[in-house]
Amino acid sequence: MSTPQPASVATTKVTPISGFPEYLPSERIVEQRFLDVIRETFELHGFSSIETRAIEPVDRLLGKGGDTDKEIYGVSRLSGDDGDGAKWGLHFDLTVPFARYVLENSGKLDFPFRRYQIQKAWRGERPQEGRYREFTQADIDVVDVGELSPHFEAEMPLVIADVFSRFPVGDFVIQVNNRKIPNGFYQGIGLTDITTTLRIVDKLDKVGPEKVSAMLVDSGATSEQAGKCLALAAIRTHDLSFVDRVRELGVTHPVLDEGLESLAAVIRTAMSHAPGKVVADLRIARGLDYYTGTVYETQIVGQEDWGSVCSGGRYDALASDGRNTYPGVGISIGVSRILGLLIGKGLVTASRSTPAAVLVALRDDESRDESVAVAAALRARGIACEVAPSAARFGKQIRYAERRGMPYVWFPGAGESGDEVKDIRSGEQVPASADSWIAPAADLRPTVTRTDV
Amino acid sequence: MSTPQPASVATTKVTPISGFPEYLPSERIVEQRFLDVIRETFELHGFSSIETRAIEPVDRLLGKGGDTDKEIYGVSRLSGDDGDGAKWGLHFDLTVPFARYVLENSGKLDFPFRRYQIQKAWRGERPQEGRYREFTQADIDVVDVGELSPHFEAEMPLVIADVFSRFPVGDFVIQVNNRKIPNGFYQGIGLTDITTTLRIVDKLDKVGPEKVSAMLVDSGATSEQAGKCLALAAIRTHDLSFVDRVRELGVTHPVLDEGLESLAAVIRTAMSHAPGKVVADLRIARGLDYYTGTVYETQIVGQEDWGSVCSGGRYDALASDGRNTYPGVGISIGVSRILGLLIGKGLVTASRSTPAAVLVALRDDESRDESVAVAAALRARGIACEVAPSAARFGKQIRYAERRGMPYVWFPGAGESGDEVKDIRSGEQVPASADSWIAPAADLRPTVTRTDV
Repeated sequence: MSTPQPASVATTKVTPISGFPEYLPSERIVEQRFLDVIRETFELHGFSSIETRAIEPVDRLLGKGGDTDKEIYGVSRLSGDDGDGAKWGLHFDLTVPFARYVLENSGKLDFPFRRYQIQKAWRGERPQEGRYREFTQADIDVVDVGELSPHFEAEMPLVIADVFSRFPVGDFVIQVNNRKIPNGFYQGIGLTDITTTLRIVDKLDKVGPEKVSAMLVDSGATSEQAGKCLALAAIRTHDLSFVDRVRELGVTHPVLDEGLESLAAVIRTAMSHAPGKVVADLRIARGLDYYTGTVYETQIVGQEDWGSVCSGGRYDALASDGRNTYPGVGISIGVSRILGLLIGKGLVTASRSTPAAVLVALRDDESRDESVAVAAALRARGIACEVAPSAARFGKQIRYAERRGMPYVWFPGAGESGDEVKDIRSGEQVPASADSWIAPAADLRPTVTRTDV
Repeated sequence: MSTPQPASVATTKVTPISGFPEYLPSERIVEQRFLDVIRETFELHGFSSIETRAIEPVDRLLGKGGDTDKEIYGVSRLSGDDGDGAKWGLHFDLTVPFARYVLENSGKLDFPFRRYQIQKAWRGERPQEGRYREFTQADIDVVDVGELSPHFEAEMPLVIADVFSRFPVGDFVIQVNNRKIPNGFYQGIGLTDITTTLRIVDKLDKVGPEKVSAMLVDSGATSEQAGKCLALAAIRTHDLSFVDRVRELGVTHPVLDEGLESLAAVIRTAMSHAPGKVVADLRIARGLDYYTGTVYETQIVGQEDWGSVCSGGRYDALASDGRNTYPGVGISIGVSRILGLLIGKGLVTASRSTPAAVLVALRDDESRDESVAVAAALRARGIACEVAPSAARFGKQIRYAERRGMPYVWFPGAGESGDEVKDIRSGEQVPASADSWIAPAADLRPTVTRTDV
């Protein structure tokens, strides 16, 4: 990836724009592989793809997803507006456009509607490691009309566990909580400003328990109440024992009961279908106000300092048009965040910079037709290849392939009985026919591997 | 696709934004299939993928690709600029950003560099049928340093013919010309304002030969010169006979000779490797000033009124940094244009609105675990599926599948010896195991078919 530097408008000197990462071809192959895994897994789970336009009316963007007004990129024609008075901005996530899409097409969609969406989004914030101003997200959501069955909240982590198991990123853990647990718990110990309390407890990772305790007391809690809040946030179990651990704190409230029951259902499903991948973590809050039930975060084991790379939750009203309310549950993979870190730190690399597995060599300029025919025959059987750009001596043609990481060079008419193909890694050259030669599956496409394990 | 209507800022009433099309899930499946075919074919031909950021400095966008200043969407933070004084705009094609990418990364790329790029672009023009303000293009280019071997100009139509042969759009024809032919020809008959002459002749399709002739005379040509220009533009052959046809007009010029030789090489290659798909058409000019040699347009047979759906050409200087010049040749598929027309007219449709081939039915709420396990087993073997959202009666569950076009409903434990699966199109229900059942290949993914043939 390019190193962030200030933008330049000079035509002969070109420098990257900070926060707008671009990949070199071999890095892009890594990105494509991750995106392919995401799409394939989402589709295996029966999610339908949609794409929304890059822009939304600014009024729709403002006030959604919290305090984002300063982060929106406005869009307008350089020569003036389009005459319809609309003010547009680039979307800063995929949830706001999806909510609008559901309202706009509610009569044409089948509910419950399972959709995935893999697109870029834009935020005008200060770029830093793993945080970009242009970035790709991959979202799934299930949305229904009026009521959403709670089992969808248990389904989300199974899909995400399936995706991350296919990534070359090693171990990961999906942390789940239910907003009703802290909500009910805080009410049960006599706290009334739930939002402030949540917000303070959410700082645990950053400032530690002592400071959180002090901030809670500053906000009006007794030190005993603050202690209970911290005790709740410390509970983290892979099984259903979190329920007893909460009960031991001696707090009761009907909303707390609801939350515990709901989280237990999610963890129970995960124990059966994604064992070891999901943990009940009562510290997880998620900042966004529209989450009302289950909330999710995901960490890569050993890379906890990267923060959550996949987050989401349940919301009672994704959208509402006055007549109907559309509750939903969704989760979003921060693709650019994961890849920026993996690629930036050189943790995942591709075996070559081109999809081509084979370079078809050129004996002389007169025989280009023959080489083009060989290439066509290979492609017809799904083998990506290109013809050498010039009839340089074979050593130079081999180096052309080598530099790009292509494993094979094909020599039309090189053998006594026809063509030959050379594995340029081993140097082995054998007779072969373009109509029958089989490339090892591992060579057919570039391999993408974790390099530090 | 949504009908274009003016934008609305009301939250309870949502209307589309004109020129920013969005697809329903089944339409999106058609789009995905076309994009998959494009990507797969580009990769078989050894093109590497890149993506560039959505924005470029406005200075870089202005003055490239002709008179586009009025069409650029500016981008700036709503709260003010980013402090570095840069003015940004959304890119209006993929060529300008690619040229910048080549300059920026020239030290890290291997030349000749074969890249493909499939991305959205934005233009602020008045939307009309098949013309959008947000649209997807799919480009291939080969760029080299200093010199570009001419055989790449012959390669482009082979790649495009391969792509279009895999589209369910019926017959198509790639029209090729070489800018040097009219250039040299016009000079050979004594015309000096080549650009104006080209621009007038380019209007042939719109206004007809009589008006073009009159305009040429108005611009200073004699009626004999005008007649020759029209005679040249009328030449169109699938083989090399266009050379003799031009010679018969009795005009000679060294630039004309170069152009004829170059176009003959392209047509000769096409006759061998894409017979019947490529035609020498001396009427093709392409408006963009940076084309210097071969130019391409593509028409779908029977839909000639749609205009060219895939165009490009050779340019001597895609980019230049003072030290090096980067000549190239490229071609761009107007994906949104093709799909907007095909989908808008209902000419191509998908067999279902979800990737799921199977709905796993739910006997009762208690057996959800069993159904989830069946779904996991099917997915492990690449069969996309989902579990029924609720344990409604089976008739209702079948209708859920039917409405989305899923071909199969799976009934866990329905038979004497285990599960059964029903093809809901035929009604046939047979015993099956999730560990071994094979879905017919045609049912595994949604089918995308031309509906009028």
